[in-house]
Amino acid sequence: MHNHARVPVGVLGASGYVGQELLRLLAGHPGASVAFATAETAAGETVEGQRLIKTDDAQVARAELVFSCLPHGVSGRYVNDVRAAGVRAVDLSADFRLSAEAVYGLTEFARPRVATAELVANPGCYPTAALLALIPLAKRGLIDPGREVVIDAASGVTGAGRNARRELLFGEVAEDYRAYAAGNTHRHLPEVRAGLAREGGFSGDLVFTPHLLPVKRGILETIHVPLTRALDQGAAEALYEEAYAGEPCVLITRGALPSLKDVVYRNRVAIGVVPVSGVQRPRLTVIAAIDNLVKGAAGQAVQNMNVMLGFPETAGLAC
Amino acid sequence: MHNHARVPVGVLGASGYVGQELLRLLAGHPGASVAFATAETAAGETVEGQRLIKTDDAQVARAELVFSCLPHGVSGRYVNDVRAAGVRAVDLSADFRLSAEAVYGLTEFARPRVATAELVANPGCYPTAALLALIPLAKRGLIDPGREVVIDAASGVTGAGRNARRELLFGEVAEDYRAYAAGNTHRHLPEVRAGLAREGGFSGDLVFTPHLLPVKRGILETIHVPLTRALDQGAAEALYEEAYAGEPCVLITRGALPSLKDVVYRNRVAIGVVPVSGVQRPRLTVIAAIDNLVKGAAGQAVQNMNVMLGFPETAGLAC
Amino acid sequence: MHNHARVPVGVLGASGYVGQELLRLLAGHPGASVAFATAETAAGETVEGQRLIKTDDAQVARAELVFSCLPHGVSGRYVNDVRAAGVRAVDLSADFRLSAEAVYGLTEFARPRVATAELVANPGCYPTAALLALIPLAKRGLIDPGREVVIDAASGVTGAGRNARRELLFGEVAEDYRAYAAGNTHRHLPEVRAGLAREGGFSGDLVFTPHLLPVKRGILETIHVPLTRALDQGAAEALYEEAYAGEPCVLITRGALPSLKDVVYRNRVAIGVVPVSGVQRPRLTVIAAIDNLVKGAAGQAVQNMNVMLGFPETAGLAC
Amino acid sequence: MHNHARVPVGVLGASGYVGQELLRLLAGHPGASVAFATAETAAGETVEGQRLIKTDDAQVARAELVFSCLPHGVSGRYVNDVRAAGVRAVDLSADFRLSAEAVYGLTEFARPRVATAELVANPGCYPTAALLALIPLAKRGLIDPGREVVIDAASGVTGAGRNARRELLFGEVAEDYRAYAAGNTHRHLPEVRAGLAREGGFSGDLVFTPHLLPVKRGILETIHVPLTRALDQGAAEALYEEAYAGEPCVLITRGALPSLKDVVYRNRVAIGVVPVSGVQRPRLTVIAAIDNLVKGAAGQAVQNMNVMLGFPETAGLAC
Repeated sequence: MHNHARVPVGVLGASGYVGQELLRLLAGHPGASVAFATAETAAGETVEGQRLIKTDDAQVARAELVFSCLPHGVSGRYVNDVRAAGVRAVDLSADFRLSAEAVYGLTEFARPRVATAELVANPGCYPTAALLALIPLAKRGLIDPGREVVIDAASGVTGAGRNARRELLFGEVAEDYRAYAAGNTHRHLPEVRAGLAREGGFSGDLVFTPHLLPVKRGILETIHVPLTRALDQGAAEALYEEAYAGEPCVLITRGALPSLKDVVYRNRVAIGVVPVSGVQRPRLTVIAAIDNLVKGAAGQAVQNMNVMLGFPETAGLAC
Repeated sequence: MHNHARVPVGVLGASGYVGQELLRLLAGHPGASVAFATAETAAGETVEGQRLIKTDDAQVARAELVFSCLPHGVSGRYVNDVRAAGVRAVDLSADFRLSAEAVYGLTEFARPRVATAELVANPGCYPTAALLALIPLAKRGLIDPGREVVIDAASGVTGAGRNARRELLFGEVAEDYRAYAAGNTHRHLPEVRAGLAREGGFSGDLVFTPHLLPVKRGILETIHVPLTRALDQGAAEALYEEAYAGEPCVLITRGALPSLKDVVYRNRVAIGVVPVSGVQRPRLTVIAAIDNLVKGAAGQAVQNMNVMLGFPETAGLAC
Repeated sequence: MHNHARVPVGVLGASGYVGQELLRLLAGHPGASVAFATAETAAGETVEGQRLIKTDDAQVARAELVFSCLPHGVSGRYVNDVRAAGVRAVDLSADFRLSAEAVYGLTEFARPRVATAELVANPGCYPTAALLALIPLAKRGLIDPGREVVIDAASGVTGAGRNARRELLFGEVAEDYRAYAAGNTHRHLPEVRAGLAREGGFSGDLVFTPHLLPVKRGILETIHVPLTRALDQGAAEALYEEAYAGEPCVLITRGALPSLKDVVYRNRVAIGVVPVSGVQRPRLTVIAAIDNLVKGAAGQAVQNMNVMLGFPETAGLAC
Repeated sequence: MHNHARVPVGVLGASGYVGQELLRLLAGHPGASVAFATAETAAGETVEGQRLIKTDDAQVARAELVFSCLPHGVSGRYVNDVRAAGVRAVDLSADFRLSAEAVYGLTEFARPRVATAELVANPGCYPTAALLALIPLAKRGLIDPGREVVIDAASGVTGAGRNARRELLFGEVAEDYRAYAAGNTHRHLPEVRAGLAREGGFSGDLVFTPHLLPVKRGILETIHVPLTRALDQGAAEALYEEAYAGEPCVLITRGALPSLKDVVYRNRVAIGVVPVSGVQRPRLTVIAAIDNLVKGAAGQAVQNMNVMLGFPETAGLAC
C-alpha cells in the first residue's frame, strides 16, 4: 500500500537525455519520490530539482526500486549490485534484454511477469515500436514467412545520446537526413527478432534500416509486411483495435497515419495501417510512432515501475 | 553557336519554390538570359532581379526555349501554346511525363533524344532518385521480379509547393515526421514504373511510400532491392561506378551512405549501397539522395536545356 | 470546496494552438473537467479526447468558468454572453486587457483581484515576459526614465496562430529569422506600457521589436534597462530573488542566462540578469524566457483559474 | 593579367565550416585554383574534390595568395610564415584585426588599401554586419553619442565552429534560443568599436548581445540607434541607398525588413530601416543580415582576394 508515503526510488545515470526525462516524469509522479540520482562528470549539477551525486556514492538500499540509465556495458555491473542489495531494478540499457535473468518489459505483453519481477529489462526504443506494431499480426499467423519484413525506422537525435560527437552537432544534423547501420547491422535487430519469436512465434527474415531525423525526439517506423492473406483497411484496423482493446498507452489511428506529433511527450504508441494496392501478393504497411524518450525509454520504465509497485499503470504518465 | 549573345529563355510559373530555384540557376548561367518570367498572384513582384509578369502576358516567341513550372493540369495547356508558337519547351509539371509527345528528360539516360527534342518532360523529384538508383540493377537483370522492391522516400517540404496549407505550417511540420499517400497511392508511382520498364526492362512489383521531412529541401530514398544473385559491397559499388562512369552529376559514395547534405544546392544524385546480411535470399539496400529543387526539378531542367541548346551539360550548375 | 466532484469548465475556440494547449493542460488537471470545447471549421474533430462543438452551440451555463481562446475582436462578444449568463470567464484574447471591466491576470501581481474576479483578461505572451522582467526594477525606481528601455523579443511560430498563411510555412520559416512590426508598431506595446505604469509606476519610453524564431514554442526577451544606479551581478540577482520569493512559477537563473529549453512545456518564467560593462552609465541586461503557449497563454489561464476556484495555484501545471 | 592561367591559392585550415565554404566558393571561381588545402585531424579527407594535407606540409610558395581559416591564436603564427615567404595572405582569424600590420578588409570601405595589401585581416562575422549597418549613420554624425547604441545579434550555429561541444548538439540547440556573452563581454565588441571609430568617427557607448539561433547559417542584427535628428522612412532609406550606391554586395530592402533567407548562400548584406514611433527622442531601428559563412567570412575573403588579384570583385560570388 502506498497511500500515505511516497515510495523512494533511485536513478543511476541521470544526466543523459533518458535520465533527465525519467527525473521529469518522476517529479510529476503521485506516488514515487526520488531518493537519489547519479551521474559521473555531471555530479553536483541539479536536474529537475535533484542534485546529482556520484554513482559510486549511491546508497541503493535507501530505494525500493532503482532505475539504471547507465550506458550499455556499464549498466549491467551496477544493476547486479542493486540486486545483490535486495533492491528491485529496471534496467534501461541493453545489458539484460536478451538475458533470461530479466523480464523483458514490453508492458502490454508482459504485465504479470513484470508485476513480480526483481529485474526488468526495459525494451529499446526501436524494438518497442517494431514489436508493438508486428506482434498482433505475428500472433495471428498473418506474416508471410517466405518474404522479408522491411522496417524503415527514423529517430530523433536524442536516441543517439548526449555525448559530444561532431556528427550530432546542430550544424551537421539540421536540414539533413541519413540512414545508418544499414544492411542489418544495428544492435537492436536481435532484440526485435527475439521479441517477435517469443511473443509472436515469428522467425522469418527482417530487414531493419534506421535513419537519423533532424528532430529532438520521436521514432516513426514504416513497416512493410507481406501477408499470408489479404486484409482490407477495416479488417486490419479491427484486428489492431481488438489486439489492444483497453490498452491505455496504445492508439490506433483509424483512417489516418500516425505522425510524431501524435506521440511526443506522451507514453503512447500510435499505430496506423494501410493495405498496399497494385501488387500481386497481399501486403500491409504498418506505421508506428513513439516518443523515443518516453514510451521508448523513461516512460515505459515508469509504466513498468507502476506495474511492479502496484500503482495505476499510467500514474505520472500522459498517454 | 552561343559565343557572343545569350540565349533568351522564358519561365512560366516563377513564383513557387521550383520557379524561384530555376531563376536562381538561370541568373548564374553563362549562356542563357531570362526573357520573361511569369506568375499569377505574385505578378509584379521581383524574384532574382526579374519582375514577374502575368502568364497570359508572356510573349513566348521572344524566347528560344520556355520552361513551365506551372501546376500539374494547368501546365499542359500553356506548353501546347508554346509549341504552337514554334518554341521548344521543358515542362516541369507531370502533364507530359507519361505521354509519347514528349521526351522523358532523365538526362543520364536520354541525352540524344533530349538534344533534338521539341518538348522535354522533366522527371518528377521522387522518380528521378528512384530511377537513377534502380535502372543500373534492372538493366543487368539483377532485380528479382518475384519479390517486391520497397521504396521508402523522404522529402523536404518544398516538394509540396508553396501554397498556404495548414498541414505545411512550421508549427505543424517542425519536430514532426510522417508518411503520406502510403499503400501505393502516390501519383509518382506510375512514372517510376514506366521509367523502370522503359530503361531497365523491369516490371515487377513496387511498394512506394513517401514521407514528409522537417527540412526545406532534399529527398532521400531508401530502396530495398531483392536480388537475383548476391552482390558484395565491392561488386555493387563497382557496378554503379561503371554504370555512371564519366557522369558529372552522379556521385557513388563508396564505403559510405549518402545524406542530404551531400546533395543540397547541387545538381547531383548521390548513391550508396549496402548488401543485407542475416537474410536467406540476396538483397541490396540502395540509398539515393538528391535536392528535390535541383536535380529533382530546376537543376535537371537546366541540365536538359544545356543539352538541347548545345551548352556544356553542367553550365550554370554546381554538381 | 471541490473535493469530490470536478468543476466543469468550458473552452471557446479550442482548435488553435492555445486552445489545444489549454485542453491538454485541463486533461491533466486534478480538479477541473471540460464541459464543452468549441471551434468553427474544426467542429466535429476530437482534441485531447474532447469532441469539438460549434461555438454557438455551447451551453455556457453548464460550466462554472469559461475560457475564451477566440480571436481578438471576436472573443469580446462571446465573453459578454458568458458573463450575461452569470458564468465567470478567463479571456485569452486581447479584448479586455486594457479595459477596466476585467482584472488583468498577471497572476504574480494580481492574486487577490483574480481570486474574486468575474472576468480575468489573461495577459499577452510578450507582455507576460516583459512585465515579469521589468516590474521588480520599476517598483524600486531603478529604471532611468531619461533613457529608453529596449526590448528585443523573439517568439516561436505558434505565437502567430494556426491559420494557413504563406509566411508561416515551414519552407519559409525554417532556417530563417526576422523582425516584424518594428518601430514600436506591435499591438502588444500598449499592454506592456499599461502594465508597467500600473504595477511599477514607470512611464518612460520603450522600444519594442518582436522577431520570428524558427521554433515551435517559446519566447525569449532581451531587455536593455538603463539604471538610475549601478547594480552588480549579486545585487541584481538578489533583487529578483527577493521580488519573487516563494513564487512557484518564477525561476531566477543565478549565474546563468535562461534559454527556451528552461521553460518550454512549463508554466514558468525564467529570468537572468547581467550588468553591462564598458559603458559610462549603469545598465542591466535582463533576459526573460517563457513558453508562449503555457505561461504566455494557456498555462497562465489555468493558473488564474486555480486562483479563482480555490485550487492550489499550480494544480495541473508543471512549473 | 589572369586570362589564361588560374592563379594558385592556398587554404590553411580547410576542415571547419569556414574552410569548407571557402573551398566551395573557390571551386566555382573562374580565375583561381586551389594549390593546397590543409587540416589537422581531417588531413587525408577530401573536401570539394580537394585532398586535405597537414598544415605543416603546405608549400606556401606554390601559392600566390594564402587564406588562413586556422583558429584564433594559432593563425597568426602561420600567417607570419606565409608573409615571410613573400606570399600575400588573407587571414580569416581575429589575430590581425586590431593590428596595424594588416589592412582591415571590410571591402566596401577599404578597396584601395586591400588592392595593394600584403596582409588582409578579414572582418569577423558580427562586426561585418554591425559596421556595414552603422558606418553610414556614423559618418554623417547622425548617431547621438549621449545615448547607447544597442546591438542585439543572432547567429546560426556554424558561427560557433565545428568542434564537438555538448552545447552545440542538435539535441541542445534545436527548438532553443539563448543569449550568450551578454553584458559586453564578447570578443567581437572591440572590433566593432575600432571599425566605427576609424570609418565613422564614432566612439560612443555600445551594448552588444549575441544570441544563438537554431539555424545553420546566417546572422541578423537588430540595431537600435539614437539619432541626433529625426529621419523618416524615406530619408533613412535614401541615406543608405546613397551610401551604398553601386555596391554589388549591399541590398537596401526598401519598405521591408531583411531576413536570413535574403542573404544565405550569398555574399551580401541586406539592410532595412524603421524609424521608431512613440518615443520622445529620435531613434532608428536598423536591421542587417548576412550569411556568417559568406559575407561574414569566406565570401568576403574571396571578395578581398578578387580586389587584391585584379579579378572582378564579385567573381565566383553570388551576391
